[in-house]
Amino acid sequence: MNTFMAEDFLLETETAKQLYEQVEKQPIFDFHNHLSAQEIYEDKGYQTITEVWLYGDHYKWRAMRAMGISEELITGPASDRERFDAWAATVPNLIGNPLYHWTHLELKRYFGCDLTVCPEYADAIWDLTKEKLENGLTARKLLELQRVEVVGTTDDPADTLKWHQKLKEEGYPIQVCPTFRPDRALGIEKPDFPEYITKLEEAAGQRVTDFTGLVEVLEGRLDFFKELGCVASDHSLERWIFSPMFREGAKLGESAKSGQAGKPGEASWAAQVFRRRLEGEALNEEEIGCYRSALLLELGRLYAKKGIVMQLHIGAVRNQSERLYRRLGADIGCDGMDDQSVARELTAFLSALDQENLLPKTVLYGLNPQMNEMLAVLAGSFGGAGVRCKVQLGPAWWFSDHKKGMEEQLECFANVSALSGFIGMTTDSRSFLSFTRHEYFRRIFCNLVGAWVERGEYPGKTPSEQARLTELVKGVCGENARAFFQRER
Amino acid sequence: MNTFMAEDFLLETETAKQLYEQVEKQPIFDFHNHLSAQEIYEDKGYQTITEVWLYGDHYKWRAMRAMGISEELITGPASDRERFDAWAATVPNLIGNPLYHWTHLELKRYFGCDLTVCPEYADAIWDLTKEKLENGLTARKLLELQRVEVVGTTDDPADTLKWHQKLKEEGYPIQVCPTFRPDRALGIEKPDFPEYITKLEEAAGQRVTDFTGLVEVLEGRLDFFKELGCVASDHSLERWIFSPMFREGAKLGESAKSGQAGKPGEASWAAQVFRRRLEGEALNEEEIGCYRSALLLELGRLYAKKGIVMQLHIGAVRNQSERLYRRLGADIGCDGMDDQSVARELTAFLSALDQENLLPKTVLYGLNPQMNEMLAVLAGSFGGAGVRCKVQLGPAWWFSDHKKGMEEQLECFANVSALSGFIGMTTDSRSFLSFTRHEYFRRIFCNLVGAWVERGEYPGKTPSEQARLTELVKGVCGENARAFFQRER
Amino acid sequence: MNTFMAEDFLLETETAKQLYEQVEKQPIFDFHNHLSAQEIYEDKGYQTITEVWLYGDHYKWRAMRAMGISEELITGPASDRERFDAWAATVPNLIGNPLYHWTHLELKRYFGCDLTVCPEYADAIWDLTKEKLENGLTARKLLELQRVEVVGTTDDPADTLKWHQKLKEEGYPIQVCPTFRPDRALGIEKPDFPEYITKLEEAAGQRVTDFTGLVEVLEGRLDFFKELGCVASDHSLERWIFSPMFREGAKLGESAKSGQAGKPGEASWAAQVFRRRLEGEALNEEEIGCYRSALLLELGRLYAKKGIVMQLHIGAVRNQSERLYRRLGADIGCDGMDDQSVARELTAFLSALDQENLLPKTVLYGLNPQMNEMLAVLAGSFGGAGVRCKVQLGPAWWFSDHKKGMEEQLECFANVSALSGFIGMTTDSRSFLSFTRHEYFRRIFCNLVGAWVERGEYPGKTPSEQARLTELVKGVCGENARAFFQRER
Repeated sequence: MNTFMAEDFLLETETAKQLYEQVEKQPIFDFHNHLSAQEIYEDKGYQTITEVWLYGDHYKWRAMRAMGISEELITGPASDRERFDAWAATVPNLIGNPLYHWTHLELKRYFGCDLTVCPEYADAIWDLTKEKLENGLTARKLLELQRVEVVGTTDDPADTLKWHQKLKEEGYPIQVCPTFRPDRALGIEKPDFPEYITKLEEAAGQRVTDFTGLVEVLEGRLDFFKELGCVASDHSLERWIFSPMFREGAKLGESAKSGQAGKPGEASWAAQVFRRRLEGEALNEEEIGCYRSALLLELGRLYAKKGIVMQLHIGAVRNQSERLYRRLGADIGCDGMDDQSVARELTAFLSALDQENLLPKTVLYGLNPQMNEMLAVLAGSFGGAGVRCKVQLGPAWWFSDHKKGMEEQLECFANVSALSGFIGMTTDSRSFLSFTRHEYFRRIFCNLVGAWVERGEYPGKTPSEQARLTELVKGVCGENARAFFQRER
Repeated sequence: MNTFMAEDFLLETETAKQLYEQVEKQPIFDFHNHLSAQEIYEDKGYQTITEVWLYGDHYKWRAMRAMGISEELITGPASDRERFDAWAATVPNLIGNPLYHWTHLELKRYFGCDLTVCPEYADAIWDLTKEKLENGLTARKLLELQRVEVVGTTDDPADTLKWHQKLKEEGYPIQVCPTFRPDRALGIEKPDFPEYITKLEEAAGQRVTDFTGLVEVLEGRLDFFKELGCVASDHSLERWIFSPMFREGAKLGESAKSGQAGKPGEASWAAQVFRRRLEGEALNEEEIGCYRSALLLELGRLYAKKGIVMQLHIGAVRNQSERLYRRLGADIGCDGMDDQSVARELTAFLSALDQENLLPKTVLYGLNPQMNEMLAVLAGSFGGAGVRCKVQLGPAWWFSDHKKGMEEQLECFANVSALSGFIGMTTDSRSFLSFTRHEYFRRIFCNLVGAWVERGEYPGKTPSEQARLTELVKGVCGENARAFFQRER
Repeated sequence: MNTFMAEDFLLETETAKQLYEQVEKQPIFDFHNHLSAQEIYEDKGYQTITEVWLYGDHYKWRAMRAMGISEELITGPASDRERFDAWAATVPNLIGNPLYHWTHLELKRYFGCDLTVCPEYADAIWDLTKEKLENGLTARKLLELQRVEVVGTTDDPADTLKWHQKLKEEGYPIQVCPTFRPDRALGIEKPDFPEYITKLEEAAGQRVTDFTGLVEVLEGRLDFFKELGCVASDHSLERWIFSPMFREGAKLGESAKSGQAGKPGEASWAAQVFRRRLEGEALNEEEIGCYRSALLLELGRLYAKKGIVMQLHIGAVRNQSERLYRRLGADIGCDGMDDQSVARELTAFLSALDQENLLPKTVLYGLNPQMNEMLAVLAGSFGGAGVRCKVQLGPAWWFSDHKKGMEEQLECFANVSALSGFIGMTTDSRSFLSFTRHEYFRRIFCNLVGAWVERGEYPGKTPSEQARLTELVKGVCGENARAFFQRER
């Protein structure tokens, strides 16, 4: 029996161990997460492990709810110690859950603590982590400990990026790059859409009177983001991806001929829909789809022109418990996976941009793992000269971000594309402690590659073969992301 | 090479073997099956192995059809021995099929026979099983041999539960609990719906003149079921799960404000639909959906109020061969899996109940294994204080009830929830011989947990760690079900 | 560490090795591919490895695009050597991709070359393959080297089958059987449909004035195909499978009663749609569906009556990049997987034929691997006396034709059907070099069976048990296909 999480954790062959040695100390390029630039700039400190682990981590909240723990101890008014104890009582139940590994990797790597989280050791872990946190285990220190080089935050176009700017002015060595996420600008069906447009106008210092003006303002914001190091955009595509109207237009090729997307008159229809929405009119699903499709196309074109990677996060069903949504708001651990068909709409969207030679580099994330194959194959239909895996399947996302999910994503990528072009792991996390998940990924990845080599499915005996394997693992563990997102060192 | 189905069958590590020893003799809590309470009460006896194996087992019928065997030997007028011989000729072809393991486990555990089923041994097996059956291997004996403690049958609300009552009066030590399955009350689109309502009236001794009356009668029947030990309901949800109308209503939150589900006036619409159906009018799909949604909500509320677990079996396509359906009726081995989107409708249904704080404990079974992740994650959005895994993914069902299917269900549950709260295996079977499938499940489960521990992915070296593992396996192999369904010993 | 692709490649147990020895030299029955009968008849020769590997293999083109290689070097005007070098630079990046294994198996088995494809060895491989090709490694030689016995080409009903005829006249020992693929006759929505009908008329020497005439002409062509050895038909079903109108009709059973499919009047509706299309009218989706459904039913009946196997390839999204489609046409590596629901339409189609006792033997291929279980179970609802696995899940197709995809397809087949009736591997390839994929399949298959036996999940110790295993592997590796397609030796 192997010791729990020993040095060779998840590395089952000699080749796997050797490969992991090549990437163990490699800097981290975390291209997509939800960290706060302000907290980095202010070098936020923590009093208790509860603050770091339990204040905002909806993964842990779900696990605690699964254990039947009351909301008071999860998101309610209980003390930090009470909440920690509730978590400590939860952890031993999480056999087979990535939280079990994440939690103990974090304890080991940030706190040097080998105890397992459980009620018996709750006191010891509480005290030990408290001491370390009080002795300077701040936000910046946490980043440095894991050799983080690039942090891609997630930001609204209306954001002032004040803290990114300050970090830049300071010359902070870790690159904190804003990511352009215009979900609210696309969310024309949301009640607060008009307010959002006002907010956007304020940020841009410019009035938005029509659809063209909206696109102009967003372009201005994107330029501003880019000045502060933005290399990527991000979208959460849920129900509407691309409306049939545009799809048919794209299919018939009107857009390519006329230089506009879709059938003649559609851009003006989206403009009408936008104006009517601002005037307070209600929209039907077709109109919502029309607006979103038109704006997505405009944004895609901008990304292509400005060299911005387009990330598409597809297939979430948000706020599944209306009761908890009303009580606690969004992002509190009540989101789930969709199972609707998206292949044809997504194809139409990418193809419409591709027809204009304006398809940006794109990363496709599917929340439901059953989408892996469809997305990976779709990606492969849109190659591009000079760019490896120009459109590619993103790393295992959210509910699939576990050992089995990562293995399946990697095998899927390898089976239908060229794994050596994969941009690798990103945390997608709200927590400064989560960078050990790169270690988790690297171990799993090296173990998979090691198994292939050991079984004689890929050569790895000669020095040149070994050099090729080293290049492969270093690529996937950071170098490919650097090239794809075009960040200089 | 391991001997076929030896003592350590499916137990690949030392830890797996040790864990299995902890649960090998544990009593069986089979919360969902299709056994006949009458056959238990009357202690049904059997003359031939054909009666037990082949009279009603549509799994075996499918396998025989796959071998090209004629319907005469499957469901037709052939003799018991001819049918057994046809089955014996089929079995060797079932490599990799759970029927191969089920068949031989049954032979070993109930008949003490180590022969493999094949034409060569057909005579020997026929004689040996005949002798054992004639010497008292009755329904009750079969249950006792496998230490069955609880049997959850499946019953229509109109059922008199006469045999459950007799068993209760007798003080039969095995708890035979009826399960409330109101599929026919929901099946307003079926030709025999009006007749069914009449049947229900007779059982209740009460007229049903309107929708409210229907709900009252169903509540009365549920109370009656509960008196006889009912702890769970069950639904087969196929095409209609929850209609968009109600969904939007729930989303907009009208229901929570007004204290009623959906938009104002919807309950009365369902009432209208019900009345028109009884008057012989044809209904369209929207009306069918409205009725089903309204009744499902009413039932869900009742389950919550009365502490009844709600089981939802989702995604079957019944009677795929119209030809055999006309000849042989339903449940004859011609059912299949659906692949339609259900995530949003199911979310809306659970959320509507949850908003009213009337979401019962719920078990979600998806027939198509591609639904596992979606269902397990959806379940996790509806936790409940004091209940572990209040909404949870049910055990691998029907066509997924095999080694790989079980492993995938367990890994999925573990990855996104807390496996220690899983209620474990149930047979869902029509056969008194099928309880050895709990052994099959336990071996597979202990093997999976054992592998995690041996690989250092979960600690298991110290006595307290081992005690935790024992608690885990005992929980999943029976204790959790007992707690979830609240059956005293 | 195992040597790359050594003698025991993919055979991990002793049993696996012994089983593979039984099938290693077995002739190949390749029931579905896209080889050219003309090239076989003319015994096509090759000058360079580029001609064989890169002129038409869209799998390799995708891989090269994934590496960011420019279209000039993929489909453009570059020299053979330049294109080969681009491929040689691509190959080392394909770890985990079946192309890596296919490429090296082809080098080993056809050229006796153990070098790995990479820039270092590009010269050596170029020269060696050139020499072998120039010294008589022709199309026929390539088939003979792999002991190919049957080649099932893919042919349009309007094809003259001139080359099949010549091969027959010659008495060529390898059976080159045409396959009847009437996709264009079903493609009423395509712009060139009227021209196609004209082409069909020419081939048949008969005018097509109405729908009945079309069916007659197709029947005539099918008879002609059959004379030249045709044993199977093939269909690519994409968006429309079977229209709801027909589905409801089939469900209500009108077809069985009236002896016609669907509701009364539907066949005449399809006839109307056909006529209007020839008159140049535009059709809506419902009309397209009606026509396709009616013609599919007519074809299914013909297949059943004439003993022709029906192959259904389901779920492709073709020509995802409109840009490359316009530049290069179809089949250039820009196709993908659909994710739409098909279960109910497909069920309705098969059941409609089954009701008339006119369901032919059928092979179901799903492009998206998430369809495996649904298709395999659906197949099992349509057994047939005297035929093993009358409707069955086809071998892992296209993007799933890799080690993991094959293992999943085999496990799925075994779990819900009788694996011993599986017709096994087919290449579906355009390349004369691809027959080594049968070796690849056989190794993977024997390894899977071997693992089951070694783990004690299926007996394999006694001589009779071993004989049964031999029968199993020989069946799946060729004998079953021969029986299913009823080809004499």
